[in-house]
Amino acid sequence: MRRKGLASMAVEAVESRTSVPRATASFGPAVALSCRECGERFPLGPSFACVSCFGPLEVAYELPVGDPESLRRRIEAGPANIWRYAPLLPVPADVADRPNLNPGFTKLVKADNLARELGVTGGLYVKDDSGNPTHSFKDRVVAIAVEAARAFGFTTLSCSSTGNLAGAVGAAAARAGLRSCVFIPHDLEAGKVVMAAVYGGELVGIEGTYDDVNRFCSELIGDPLGEGWGFVNVNLRPYYGEGSKTLAYEICEQLGWRLPDQIVVPVASGSQLTKIDKGLKELVALGLVEDRPYRIFGAQAEGCAPVSRAFKDGHEVVRPVKPDTIAKSLAIGNPADGPYVLDIARRTSGAVEDVDDERIVEAIRLLARTEGIFAETAGGVTVGVTRKLLEDGRLDPSLTTVVLNTGDGLKTLDAVAAGPTATIPPSLSAFRTAGLAGL
Amino acid sequence: MRRKGLASMAVEAVESRTSVPRATASFGPAVALSCRECGERFPLGPSFACVSCFGPLEVAYELPVGDPESLRRRIEAGPANIWRYAPLLPVPADVADRPNLNPGFTKLVKADNLARELGVTGGLYVKDDSGNPTHSFKDRVVAIAVEAARAFGFTTLSCSSTGNLAGAVGAAAARAGLRSCVFIPHDLEAGKVVMAAVYGGELVGIEGTYDDVNRFCSELIGDPLGEGWGFVNVNLRPYYGEGSKTLAYEICEQLGWRLPDQIVVPVASGSQLTKIDKGLKELVALGLVEDRPYRIFGAQAEGCAPVSRAFKDGHEVVRPVKPDTIAKSLAIGNPADGPYVLDIARRTSGAVEDVDDERIVEAIRLLARTEGIFAETAGGVTVGVTRKLLEDGRLDPSLTTVVLNTGDGLKTLDAVAAGPTATIPPSLSAFRTAGLAGL
Repeated sequence: MRRKGLASMAVEAVESRTSVPRATASFGPAVALSCRECGERFPLGPSFACVSCFGPLEVAYELPVGDPESLRRRIEAGPANIWRYAPLLPVPADVADRPNLNPGFTKLVKADNLARELGVTGGLYVKDDSGNPTHSFKDRVVAIAVEAARAFGFTTLSCSSTGNLAGAVGAAAARAGLRSCVFIPHDLEAGKVVMAAVYGGELVGIEGTYDDVNRFCSELIGDPLGEGWGFVNVNLRPYYGEGSKTLAYEICEQLGWRLPDQIVVPVASGSQLTKIDKGLKELVALGLVEDRPYRIFGAQAEGCAPVSRAFKDGHEVVRPVKPDTIAKSLAIGNPADGPYVLDIARRTSGAVEDVDDERIVEAIRLLARTEGIFAETAGGVTVGVTRKLLEDGRLDPSLTTVVLNTGDGLKTLDAVAAGPTATIPPSLSAFRTAGLAGL
Repeated sequence: MRRKGLASMAVEAVESRTSVPRATASFGPAVALSCRECGERFPLGPSFACVSCFGPLEVAYELPVGDPESLRRRIEAGPANIWRYAPLLPVPADVADRPNLNPGFTKLVKADNLARELGVTGGLYVKDDSGNPTHSFKDRVVAIAVEAARAFGFTTLSCSSTGNLAGAVGAAAARAGLRSCVFIPHDLEAGKVVMAAVYGGELVGIEGTYDDVNRFCSELIGDPLGEGWGFVNVNLRPYYGEGSKTLAYEICEQLGWRLPDQIVVPVASGSQLTKIDKGLKELVALGLVEDRPYRIFGAQAEGCAPVSRAFKDGHEVVRPVKPDTIAKSLAIGNPADGPYVLDIARRTSGAVEDVDDERIVEAIRLLARTEGIFAETAGGVTVGVTRKLLEDGRLDPSLTTVVLNTGDGLKTLDAVAAGPTATIPPSLSAFRTAGLAGL
């Protein structure tokens, strides 16, 4: 069920080091790393795979027990960013005072116009993460990784990326006073290159595909060259991933401390969806929201739909695919958390579905036209899948539904071919003739 | 001192209409339009120039008097957007419940890294308006214009624009359920065209320059063809402009209800700077902040610096220029509020200064590298001017200083030529050879 090559290689690499750094600062309520497969526990450190079974590690907590009302008040009195949830995250209590981009607490937009078009009567909301500092949800996960990097004494923040993550890491490192070194395929679009380079860190083009970039990073992390480096999505991954829990916290708080009935989440590696489920369960366990059923739906692009395919086929295994879609930020053909996504979708009576590129673009336009939100292609995927699931009755229109938009249309302009209605000379008669006067 | 051609033409046009719409809904604390030149008062309506002297009209208020502490608490309990200041804006009390993009309450970033580089010891802050829904301060002004359009029964929202405003109007109209018709020069960059067109309103390319577009809009507003149209920056301009006051409110609230000592504001038409001054004065008058001196500095690009030129020459008149700068969102050669900017800079012991394109780009990179904020060219102008004013001693480094970033670097990517540090094959030896190992 789990792909072991990369993980085992990197575990050996980390183990072979003479000194593995350990936490030097507080991780707040986090107490250990625990293997999601076999449950074995490890000290909080820059590791990401179980030495026994190669399963992925995640952060385990001793969360604050006690009066939910006082915790709720404490959160509500906190800053308007993810640090309001510091008591539930692997970060020190004074995290809000450190230099960080302070992402989060983005708008939960009540999308009444879109609801009317789609026939949703139970309340439709768009959680719009384009409002984050570098305009994608990646700022959330990187913010936690920055704090972990500090705790482990790392001086360089790194990642492999084809877009959103590169900008988020570059910006966060600049603000935090860390060096950064971001690896990208050498033939990335010029716009994304500028966004990745402008923060002044090192940006290295790798002659090869994104897979080649990833493989190179895995080698680097096991080499003395990579000593002191925190790769946000490799050796800091357990911390990094926790940032996605804040999406769940915010949605519930912004709904008035209530679970949504249905939530539609994009699936790339699948990590975000699993962390949203984790966040919702934590809020229930803490008594911050009433325990009632919720359904989680995963959304993929047809051109890269390995998890959707496995869901439809009733498989527990996700068969890798070669991505071919305009939704490049979701184009992970071999999603590490795919099996967990399948578990969650089935357990919560949700689903995983996909839409083709044409419907993605239609959905981007639909969301822009109805709510004034210009989503990146991943937002077109979630809105498109929402529409599809409503059409075939798998989403209940009478229930409260939240759709995630995780990025910004400005970063994927090429996907949307939009232009003027008309081009005319500067005269009223031309305007009249163009048939626009009836507006 | 005042340019009269356009204003008088439009006043005549409005006067010649058979029926001028009047307010049909509440404007909150606003009671009249008043001429900034002769002080004559007019009823709240879709007018923008004094019929007596052709001076510009602005909104006059009867602001809430009483206990400042209770007003402060009321504001602090409000939503995390500009509507928390509804008691000080020309909007109805229930404005937060209407479909609107709800801009504002963007981050005031304590820029300690930048302060160190620039030698500022008294506290340096960046008010980062790239966090607004369409990533520029224009969302603030358009939000107020939308409410005015509703009040006057306008069904179409319109503007002339070369960029930020087009996107802001398109998005706001979509969300508000109004039609939109945005006029742009026909040869605008493709990226800006997409951003303007994606919200589904009418987008009309005009064969001509931006000046031709403006002239065409002035004709349209006086023609029956334009009946029922609210041009945010023409017949709704008095309301529209008030949106910029919220920048002043937010800065003071985010400083802990305190006036900044020094504030650096970009100057295009000059409207924003005058409204920030208005907002600061209102807070003093209401007792929400302690009355103490503040200094306002205007920032222009050398390639379009008519106000800076007039300031240096000691003139009260602003001589129009033909813009030639990468800071296109500030490229207004004949700024309507230029003389007022001069008044304010002189009265507050501030200044108006300009920087060339090279320093604008340097400043964009400086802000990105130190604080992880990717500003549009206008942000490069304010940061560049801040640096210049510190270098020659006109900004006091020991005082609390706020610099405005009014837009997003993603919209002006071409201005910044940033690329990879190195491009290498995917091998550790290549990485070693590239000299990046010492990070």
